[in-house]
Amino acid sequence: MARSFDVIAMGNAIVDVIAPVDDDFLLTHKIAKGMMTLIDEYRANHLYNAFSERREVAGGSAANTMAGLASLGARGFFVGKVKADRLGDSFADSLRDIGVRFTTAPAGDGPPTACSLIAVAPDGQRSMNTYLGAARELSPADIKAEDIAAADILYIEGYLWDALLAKAASRKAIAAAKESGTKVAFTLSDPFCVGRYREEFLELLGRDLDILFANEDEAKALFEAETFDEVLQHMERWGGIAALTRSEKGCVVVRGSEVHVIDAAPVAQVIDTTGAGDQFAAGFLYGLVRGKDLAVCGRLGVLAAGEIISHYGARPETSLEVLAAEADLL
Amino acid sequence: MARSFDVIAMGNAIVDVIAPVDDDFLLTHKIAKGMMTLIDEYRANHLYNAFSERREVAGGSAANTMAGLASLGARGFFVGKVKADRLGDSFADSLRDIGVRFTTAPAGDGPPTACSLIAVAPDGQRSMNTYLGAARELSPADIKAEDIAAADILYIEGYLWDALLAKAASRKAIAAAKESGTKVAFTLSDPFCVGRYREEFLELLGRDLDILFANEDEAKALFEAETFDEVLQHMERWGGIAALTRSEKGCVVVRGSEVHVIDAAPVAQVIDTTGAGDQFAAGFLYGLVRGKDLAVCGRLGVLAAGEIISHYGARPETSLEVLAAEADLL
Repeated sequence: MARSFDVIAMGNAIVDVIAPVDDDFLLTHKIAKGMMTLIDEYRANHLYNAFSERREVAGGSAANTMAGLASLGARGFFVGKVKADRLGDSFADSLRDIGVRFTTAPAGDGPPTACSLIAVAPDGQRSMNTYLGAARELSPADIKAEDIAAADILYIEGYLWDALLAKAASRKAIAAAKESGTKVAFTLSDPFCVGRYREEFLELLGRDLDILFANEDEAKALFEAETFDEVLQHMERWGGIAALTRSEKGCVVVRGSEVHVIDAAPVAQVIDTTGAGDQFAAGFLYGLVRGKDLAVCGRLGVLAAGEIISHYGARPETSLEVLAAEADLL
Repeated sequence: MARSFDVIAMGNAIVDVIAPVDDDFLLTHKIAKGMMTLIDEYRANHLYNAFSERREVAGGSAANTMAGLASLGARGFFVGKVKADRLGDSFADSLRDIGVRFTTAPAGDGPPTACSLIAVAPDGQRSMNTYLGAARELSPADIKAEDIAAADILYIEGYLWDALLAKAASRKAIAAAKESGTKVAFTLSDPFCVGRYREEFLELLGRDLDILFANEDEAKALFEAETFDEVLQHMERWGGIAALTRSEKGCVVVRGSEVHVIDAAPVAQVIDTTGAGDQFAAGFLYGLVRGKDLAVCGRLGVLAAGEIISHYGARPETSLEVLAAEADLL
């Protein structure tokens, strides 16, 4: 039975607030340069007001992946929680504008829409200060089994484990996916996130996941492995589809004993690596839902990642569908 | 039955003659910068005399691999042809000094011992002008079945295909190896070499080889593949042990569906990449004859290659056995 959507994704619904700053600003405001730090509402307001010049863009890891999928021409559905406030409306509009279905009811009260206050230093390094706000309130009530059943793949970001309700929502979605034969894909999101939930992620892997996305650091953290090859051997034994990204080394794709080593796409100049993993996932998932073999899925992944790192911002600026067609991958 | 030797290698017996030159020298003498070029005796004499300052070191790809094996404490045997002349004596002494057995009878007449006239430019690039001389005269009569049978592995360099007699000697050695249960390992040597003998190398692979060494360019040339992943898929289907080196990307080791991705060893500063492949082969072969699993063989390979590229010259300056022990690979 053909389903109405290619991928339904669940993630933190976050608006990025981006401002150029100097190193003094980072020191004065005690911002850890180059890191993602979770902050509270008080600090979020404080930093927001301290930013003199700011630009707002819908963000969030899984939502950015859906933007990439839309750029490839796939039919996406996003599930995540905003509040009914200005940023919440802006987030919803930004998804609907690119054709991604987004129907999660905004919260009427409680904390405001999540934002990530991103300070960009003169050297291009980005320090992300993320206030989860309403995103933490995503709950099992927001999950509709018929939405999950309407997609080929359910894609979940590991960051959701940082909120108990959102985690419960993820588990409900996974159960619905198993019921309807929807494949379950998961991204480990961040090595620190893996550190916080390692045992739970391993259990998920063994019991629930069909497809795993991880960069090298995340995968090493998951298996407490010292070398990439140890990770690879774990993944071969696991038997599901693992897409392991390695920055400038490209990616390794594994399904049981089938292994592909794919080089990174050539990029004239790396401008900003933010969101490379999210776009890799978009390209790879697109290949999967279009029935491509795993080597082509990996090449679609590195193609999308290569586009995103060649400019600022975490959403594609050039149509990924056009790029993929030019690379003869469609 | 325990055999007397770990590896018996066959290759061109070449003395390297190394000289610092400036770019004008390369232009005046029409030397293709950074390349290996085969030259005749006349040109060899001419360049030898034009070198104002020169240093002589025993070289040759497989002979350098045997030097690496000796540095690891393995028992090696080298088969290759020199002439009974000054360079020939120097070559033989250099192997015997490090404990590598070398009993091939030197030619009493015919062309002189092979030499590679290596012009090192101020930027460190090496241009190799190789005169094969007596090395081309290695013949089936130099191959003794009992020597082959005395080793666990027979290792042959693809460069031998450049001389009909040496190729016939290689085929005789392979037949003896199959008779005695000695494993047959082969290195593709050079992408141009693969271009010259592609069909024959493919036939060897399918019929005679247990272990293949190739760098990425050589392996792509063998399969006329555009991407490394295509090479990998060919090797998985082949089923033997393939050790595929990828310069700064490390190596990929394959045996049927078993795949290992090994990173390059960290090197403080890359000084001279000459001979990296030869030393990789030394480390890898050492692992194999000591019964290590393939991941450890690969790590021994990149360790040995990392040593060699951190200084000038194609033979180890630090004991590889000590380095391997420090890295906990023995």
